[in-house]
Amino acid sequence: MNAELLVSWREGPARQAIIKCVERICGEDGSPPVPVEQRVAVFDNDGTLWCEKPMPIQLDFILRRLVAMATAQPELRDRQPWKAAYERDYGWLGALMIEHYAGNDTNVRTLAAGILAAYAGISVDDFEQQSDAFLRSAQHPTLGRGYLECAYAPMVELLGYLKANGFTNYIASGGGRDFMRPTSQDMYGIPRERVIGSSSTFAYTDDGPGGTITHKPEADYIDDGPEKPVRIWNRTGRRPLIAGGNSNGDVPMLHFTHSVDTPTLHLLVLHDDGEREFAYTDGAEQALIQADTAGWTVISMKNDWSTIF
Amino acid sequence: MNAELLVSWREGPARQAIIKCVERICGEDGSPPVPVEQRVAVFDNDGTLWCEKPMPIQLDFILRRLVAMATAQPELRDRQPWKAAYERDYGWLGALMIEHYAGNDTNVRTLAAGILAAYAGISVDDFEQQSDAFLRSAQHPTLGRGYLECAYAPMVELLGYLKANGFTNYIASGGGRDFMRPTSQDMYGIPRERVIGSSSTFAYTDDGPGGTITHKPEADYIDDGPEKPVRIWNRTGRRPLIAGGNSNGDVPMLHFTHSVDTPTLHLLVLHDDGEREFAYTDGAEQALIQADTAGWTVISMKNDWSTIF
Repeated sequence: MNAELLVSWREGPARQAIIKCVERICGEDGSPPVPVEQRVAVFDNDGTLWCEKPMPIQLDFILRRLVAMATAQPELRDRQPWKAAYERDYGWLGALMIEHYAGNDTNVRTLAAGILAAYAGISVDDFEQQSDAFLRSAQHPTLGRGYLECAYAPMVELLGYLKANGFTNYIASGGGRDFMRPTSQDMYGIPRERVIGSSSTFAYTDDGPGGTITHKPEADYIDDGPEKPVRIWNRTGRRPLIAGGNSNGDVPMLHFTHSVDTPTLHLLVLHDDGEREFAYTDGAEQALIQADTAGWTVISMKNDWSTIF
Repeated sequence: MNAELLVSWREGPARQAIIKCVERICGEDGSPPVPVEQRVAVFDNDGTLWCEKPMPIQLDFILRRLVAMATAQPELRDRQPWKAAYERDYGWLGALMIEHYAGNDTNVRTLAAGILAAYAGISVDDFEQQSDAFLRSAQHPTLGRGYLECAYAPMVELLGYLKANGFTNYIASGGGRDFMRPTSQDMYGIPRERVIGSSSTFAYTDDGPGGTITHKPEADYIDDGPEKPVRIWNRTGRRPLIAGGNSNGDVPMLHFTHSVDTPTLHLLVLHDDGEREFAYTDGAEQALIQADTAGWTVISMKNDWSTIF
């Protein structure tokens, strides 16, 4: 039912695989329907639900914060990552991602330490206000649209289609959980309690009415790779029946999406549309091999989507 | 609305405070109703929703596991906590709790290390099967009822009343999250994804179809005291409007339950009915002082509840 919601999906194998799986789970093919509480779907965010090029949206948010810090404290301008942010040295940042894909995370750790320092001591309320204001005002650097309009329309339709068929959708992203929460309902119809993502550790202080939760300068966990199944379990207590991702870091989540009793669906968004979005497979090499081996459904943005945004 | 669900609550200040707060939040007194998504209620489990004497129910579960280990591995019988479990040395366990309340956690750490060792390497699926089987079969040692019937009837009614008024209920317990999950829906009408509790860390292994999540022998966090607000925030992304607890470890959670715009309700279950349950204030001394100072609603099991179970 409700397949008419998938208006931006062209007729083809991806759309067919989605509808076939959902109709089987809902018992529309005559098989016993899967109980509603078991209909859990999980989706990566960056590159799966919204655009992650030329850089992840949260990185833009962070760089602005680092620039503001370096502007206020000149002594930071000689230290990475503030130096790269202050000098708009996209070479350093680009090299960092290439090194990361090659297995060298030296500069990733430098950036991560900067990020943690950048928000040390901020309250969760103030952090939310900042990310909310950023996402509702900042523009994508090349697409000519606000970040809030950088979600992929077909994926938003897919979330709506799943919801209409009794599914509970979660975001299972490597990005910051509290960065996404203020806008997840408006963008995706996913309420804040169903956003799973990376997080720093927090401290609670009884400093007045209601007390305050503040960010500590250490990561609690990075919700990527083999940590994704763990975090999905911690939050939901279930294995998903449907999962969508786009990169190597999503492979364990897709692999964890499994049932011996019911059909499951594994979606991998392929960025093959350099005209309407960006064409790249960097960081998705292993995922594409796995998709081929395991028979996952690869979504060609170029062929399967009539509209991207 | 739906106050008739509170059948086991005697007319009195606790029942009145609950109904007054819920009716205000729902706008039945003419004030603007609080949006449904903000109606979050959190409850401790041990001593708040179900009985925790003569020992926490999960401790019984753990002791049986330690006995089974010591039976299979005789060399464990000389080491704590296996020694105490194997010899049914309730003196050691009782002293441990008294030391804990006095701020000495030496033996608590010995017990915790034993617990973590007891489940090292078990899959989340196997652990769930064990806790589910235990809770659905084991008997309370003195009350003459199965553990599944050890939930307080008035609190179950309260959860139903809140649900009927648009609230989303969570368990925010110091007990093990995955221990409670298999029965939380049947006992409390709270689905597994809304159980917040303590947890060990996990590892994900891609060891076949779907992979496996296993327990590692280290605590991820203990959901008690100042960790409770942090874990509630991590899971829900909100401050609760209603919270219920019974011990010192619940004080930060109750304190975190706050709003400048809407009414809030802070419930503290007082164990003052030695005839029908157990009479004790050990571990609740600070909470009772806070309740008095802050005007929290103390629930007298003896006076406010016509039925306990």
